[in-house]
Amino acid sequence: IKFLPLFDRVLVERLMAETVTKGGIMLPEKSQGKVLQATVVAVGPGAVNQVRNVTPVSVKVGEKVLLPEYGGTKVTLEDKEYFLFRDGDILGKYVE
Amino acid sequence: IKFLPLFDRVLVERLMAETVTKGGIMLPEKSQGKVLQATVVAVGPGAVNQVRNVTPVSVKVGEKVLLPEYGGTKVTLEDKEYFLFRDGDILGKYVE
Amino acid sequence: IKFLPLFDRVLVERLMAETVTKGGIMLPEKSQGKVLQATVVAVGPGAVNQVRNVTPVSVKVGEKVLLPEYGGTKVTLEDKEYFLFRDGDILGKYVE
Amino acid sequence: IKFLPLFDRVLVERLMAETVTKGGIMLPEKSQGKVLQATVVAVGPGAVNQVRNVTPVSVKVGEKVLLPEYGGTKVTLEDKEYFLFRDGDILGKYVE
Amino acid sequence: IKFLPLFDRVLVERLMAETVTKGGIMLPEKSQGKVLQATVVAVGPGAVNQVRNVTPVSVKVGEKVLLPEYGGTKVTLEDKEYFLFRDGDILGKYVE
Amino acid sequence: IKFLPLFDRVLVERLMAETVTKGGIMLPEKSQGKVLQATVVAVGPGAVNQVRNVTPVSVKVGEKVLLPEYGGTKVTLEDKEYFLFRDGDILGKYVE
Amino acid sequence: IKFLPLFDRVLVERLMAETVTKGGIMLPEKSQGKVLQATVVAVGPGAVNQVRNVTPVSVKVGEKVLLPEYGGTKVTLEDKEYFLFRDGDILGKYVE
Repeated sequence: IKFLPLFDRVLVERLMAETVTKGGIMLPEKSQGKVLQATVVAVGPGAVNQVRNVTPVSVKVGEKVLLPEYGGTKVTLEDKEYFLFRDGDILGKYVE
Repeated sequence: IKFLPLFDRVLVERLMAETVTKGGIMLPEKSQGKVLQATVVAVGPGAVNQVRNVTPVSVKVGEKVLLPEYGGTKVTLEDKEYFLFRDGDILGKYVE
Repeated sequence: IKFLPLFDRVLVERLMAETVTKGGIMLPEKSQGKVLQATVVAVGPGAVNQVRNVTPVSVKVGEKVLLPEYGGTKVTLEDKEYFLFRDGDILGKYVE
Repeated sequence: IKFLPLFDRVLVERLMAETVTKGGIMLPEKSQGKVLQATVVAVGPGAVNQVRNVTPVSVKVGEKVLLPEYGGTKVTLEDKEYFLFRDGDILGKYVE
Repeated sequence: IKFLPLFDRVLVERLMAETVTKGGIMLPEKSQGKVLQATVVAVGPGAVNQVRNVTPVSVKVGEKVLLPEYGGTKVTLEDKEYFLFRDGDILGKYVE
Repeated sequence: IKFLPLFDRVLVERLMAETVTKGGIMLPEKSQGKVLQATVVAVGPGAVNQVRNVTPVSVKVGEKVLLPEYGGTKVTLEDKEYFLFRDGDILGKYVE
Repeated sequence: IKFLPLFDRVLVERLMAETVTKGGIMLPEKSQGKVLQATVVAVGPGAVNQVRNVTPVSVKVGEKVLLPEYGGTKVTLEDKEYFLFRDGDILGKYVE
């Protein structure tokens, strides 16, 4: 994506909500839970501290992360919906 | 567990609430006290300070800790319920 | 432009709102979305920190940036409308 | 006690409220003043500052301290009631 | 002027509001826009930081600056009206 | 007194309120002004800063100080009433 | 005066309000403007910063200063009314 988040911002794409139950029944939109899992799409260079050191963000492009339930900024890039979170607000990442 | 908390977050699993009295009587759910004891399941690498040093968290995986009554973030991982707490919000740990 | 923002302020000019649909139909003003894309017109020297170092701003004149939905200060210079944002409030920049 | 407070927390046990007047009359519970004197039972290792130094707490196990009227967290350990206070919230200690 | 602002305060004199339209019509007072342009009349030595360094203010006497719409302290010196602003609250300056 | 305030706390004893006018008339309690003068009875070792230095308090035992009108914590020691103030909240001291 | 303000506090005496107009007419008390000019009577040693350096106050005894409209603490010393201001709250000083 041709977008560079600034400072410690992380651009993520939420995973798709499940729209069909395991039994194959279509779920109405409001029954679809809020998806808190997302994939990192782009990361900022990191926050600048008081002594001008840059602290790199703690996640990498491609990693799967767990988002907090609230917060984040919705941004539309090339007609697709993404979210920006501060590195420090991302709860954790899924590891192998 | 295949999940790594970020920064100074600590993933814990609460101990089971007691559902039966010592005398063997079944307790209705609302009589079961909120369980404040938990086991540490995963820990973040630690918070990053102004001079870019990482302060490791003060608890280790497997330790039994005392949680504050309020706070923490419920997360569901592999269909099981866990809680994320900031290292600094955990009240203390049980030692031998 | 003959204006120098102070500290970490960034002067931007918002892109024009689309006033005509792709099909050629004129859009009434309230149907025109708020434009969050802008071009950097002038930048301040950067914020001064506690040890008197200046942290340069993270965007350059001519770069295209993504603004937050709220915030910023409208300023009129030579009868034209611009906006001042703090460097840290700009969400990201578009890159090639 | 098999409990280690974290950071600058101090575990104290409040002295017993006086339940009988000097003249020997039983005091009803609500006439018994709030007891602000307590004995230190366990102390945390101390708070960690920005440069990762640990500042030891200023009281020791066994010392008799004066608690503030409000604040503190009630914790139950081995069926006994204790209180956790931040080191900095304890008003002072009784010395010989 | 025989007045020295303290710390990072800047004393400014607002430009006169336009009281006549270009066509020569007298403007009633409430139609006269708030004037945000001002000339720097006196500057403080600068704020003192934690390590006792003084950070000089970023504007000089005689410079023309852009004020924020709100804030500032009105002061009367020798029967003339001036305004004190913190250096950091001044939006920018006009340059040749 | 057998009490050591912690950190930058200062234990003071307020001077007696005047209960009789200069003319010898007894003043009812509510006509007796709040006494803001006090004598320092005990002082803490001082506050601990971020780099673990202790900053000694600025008053000494026996000095007569001016208290702020509000604030302070009433404490009872050996059946006598004292007040604890933070060193930084004491307005000044009376000198010869 | 036999009083030493603590830290960065400055003791000032407000100039007298004008009680008579230039034409010689007595002004009722509520028509007398609040006097913002004052003379410095005593100064504290200065605030102590995080690294234990003392920052001397920026005004000297005898200097004439401009006070902010709000704030300050009224104190009565030897039956005379004075005001205590933090050094940083004094707007500026009158110079020759």
